[in-house]
Amino acid sequence: MIAAFVVGTTATARIDGISAAGASPDVMVHTPAADAELVTYGRPVFAPMVPVSPSGTPTPSLVTRAALDFLDIETTVLDAGLAARTAAPTVDVGVAPGKDIRTDHPVPDARSAFESGASVGRALEDDELLVGESVPGGTTTAMGVLTALGEPSAVSSSLPENPVERKRSVVAAGMEESGVEPGELAGQPIDAVMRVGDPVLATVAGLVAGATDAGIGVTLAGGSQMVAAAALARHAGVTAPLTIATTPFVRADETFDLRAGADALDLTVRVTDPGFDAGDHLAFERYRAGEAKEGVGMGGALWLADRAGVPMAEVRERIVDYYERLVEGDGSE
Amino acid sequence: MIAAFVVGTTATARIDGISAAGASPDVMVHTPAADAELVTYGRPVFAPMVPVSPSGTPTPSLVTRAALDFLDIETTVLDAGLAARTAAPTVDVGVAPGKDIRTDHPVPDARSAFESGASVGRALEDDELLVGESVPGGTTTAMGVLTALGEPSAVSSSLPENPVERKRSVVAAGMEESGVEPGELAGQPIDAVMRVGDPVLATVAGLVAGATDAGIGVTLAGGSQMVAAAALARHAGVTAPLTIATTPFVRADETFDLRAGADALDLTVRVTDPGFDAGDHLAFERYRAGEAKEGVGMGGALWLADRAGVPMAEVRERIVDYYERLVEGDGSE
Repeated sequence: MIAAFVVGTTATARIDGISAAGASPDVMVHTPAADAELVTYGRPVFAPMVPVSPSGTPTPSLVTRAALDFLDIETTVLDAGLAARTAAPTVDVGVAPGKDIRTDHPVPDARSAFESGASVGRALEDDELLVGESVPGGTTTAMGVLTALGEPSAVSSSLPENPVERKRSVVAAGMEESGVEPGELAGQPIDAVMRVGDPVLATVAGLVAGATDAGIGVTLAGGSQMVAAAALARHAGVTAPLTIATTPFVRADETFDLRAGADALDLTVRVTDPGFDAGDHLAFERYRAGEAKEGVGMGGALWLADRAGVPMAEVRERIVDYYERLVEGDGSE
Repeated sequence: MIAAFVVGTTATARIDGISAAGASPDVMVHTPAADAELVTYGRPVFAPMVPVSPSGTPTPSLVTRAALDFLDIETTVLDAGLAARTAAPTVDVGVAPGKDIRTDHPVPDARSAFESGASVGRALEDDELLVGESVPGGTTTAMGVLTALGEPSAVSSSLPENPVERKRSVVAAGMEESGVEPGELAGQPIDAVMRVGDPVLATVAGLVAGATDAGIGVTLAGGSQMVAAAALARHAGVTAPLTIATTPFVRADETFDLRAGADALDLTVRVTDPGFDAGDHLAFERYRAGEAKEGVGMGGALWLADRAGVPMAEVRERIVDYYERLVEGDGSE
């Protein structure tokens, strides 16, 4: 088993009210780079802080790292358009940060990102691959891609109140600017990313295509963004079994129909409950209120911990440790 | 134990007759990127070929990878000025390829490379660190740095006939251009790299400083370049025990006095013999003739295999496997 985290940026995240993956749009640019450091080193190294939402919810990468601490699993990070330095080792797939999807062709290098992802996927020497992502604004680009492919396009949100109308109007503006009708790009996944997606989606789709081609079992860890990546892979001709591993917070999101997406794309769904109801800690409270929900492979890491027989109470204790040291503390060891 | 490979470039390698770390100066630019892929994936991914010397000697990274195949050791790669893409996950230390040391200040960003290396070293969560390098032309820049620091400055070579006079005249030209007298930069390691070194040396020295600061035991795997990196670390105030792990081919090099460098810098030396005399294969023949000698952590990986009780005959068989598949074959799986 190897866990690959595909991290990058899209200027779509700067649109007001779109994302909670950072305390403000100005610091959100650091979120994917910081998430990569957190899963790799368990603390920020070059990153100025641990990413928190505007209301203080810690990044799901803390949960992922806490779960991975109990497992002996290799991790790797793919740089799919970072806009800040990271101290995590990354495979640079050679793609620029994504532009706002309301511009024409926001991901002009989608093809090379897909192909680099596929090369990396084929080169992996493991039987199983878990894929996580970090890209603020990613649910909006996921909606764009799903719409262009003609798949169920409701998506979840890192905000407790999903700004659905805002996202729909952004996607509609993007479709118009890039000259795409809903469903028009069925079977043309690279075009769909190029016109209304983000570089992380292109890379994840390529990684899935390459890994499945090499006979590696793939689990996509995440919510709507991973459904969109799976859709891209399916439209690229991937017929291998694919699993989505996610959290109960995503499943509980009434604005997103995980079942519909999974059925349409023939995806197995695994939901692993970290039992945040049992913990009365500040680190869990905002998750219970529906914030963050998922990201950076959280649902997948929880699943792996559960599969290995790690009690969730121990994972929760570890999350609290990280939270107290890194969020309440001074941000370093 | 974690094995970190610091890979980068210096335009010094383009000077005629300086390096055998590639079939020609034009393809040598790919060598460190390819070496990173070979240790990570066991085959080239983005790289166009497996690096060989002009006479066909395979890169020592094949030996390193063969030895690592028997061990359960995490590896990481630091990009200290690559000039070609690599599919290996790399920590980008944010340093440009080094310029020819005959120019003024060939490594202007030596300080940030050192500091980034130190941050990564401090962030490692292991008890032991093995450091390897790949930088064509690196023995010449090693000579430059050792000269500037006032340490024993004889260095080894990837060529069977060490072009000692050529290197001395290149270093002398570099010292003059950057305005440095021999020994003048004792205690000023960053200045020494900035003026007559390469970005890999700066990064390795930083990595050593950071790791030892965090209480991690450090073994530098290599020959002259690692002696130069150790010298930089010592001149930066590192007093922790340091070990050099290398090959008998380096020790046998009469143009290089490993013992003198080790004594001057208080380094423990470990030499591990892969027993290439016992194998009559083409893959070993040029090593026996004194070509390549060391590189990409070869001596360190052999030491780790030996320490783990892996018979060298098995390592040699594995080297032959890689050689036949990747050098004699079509360059891919």
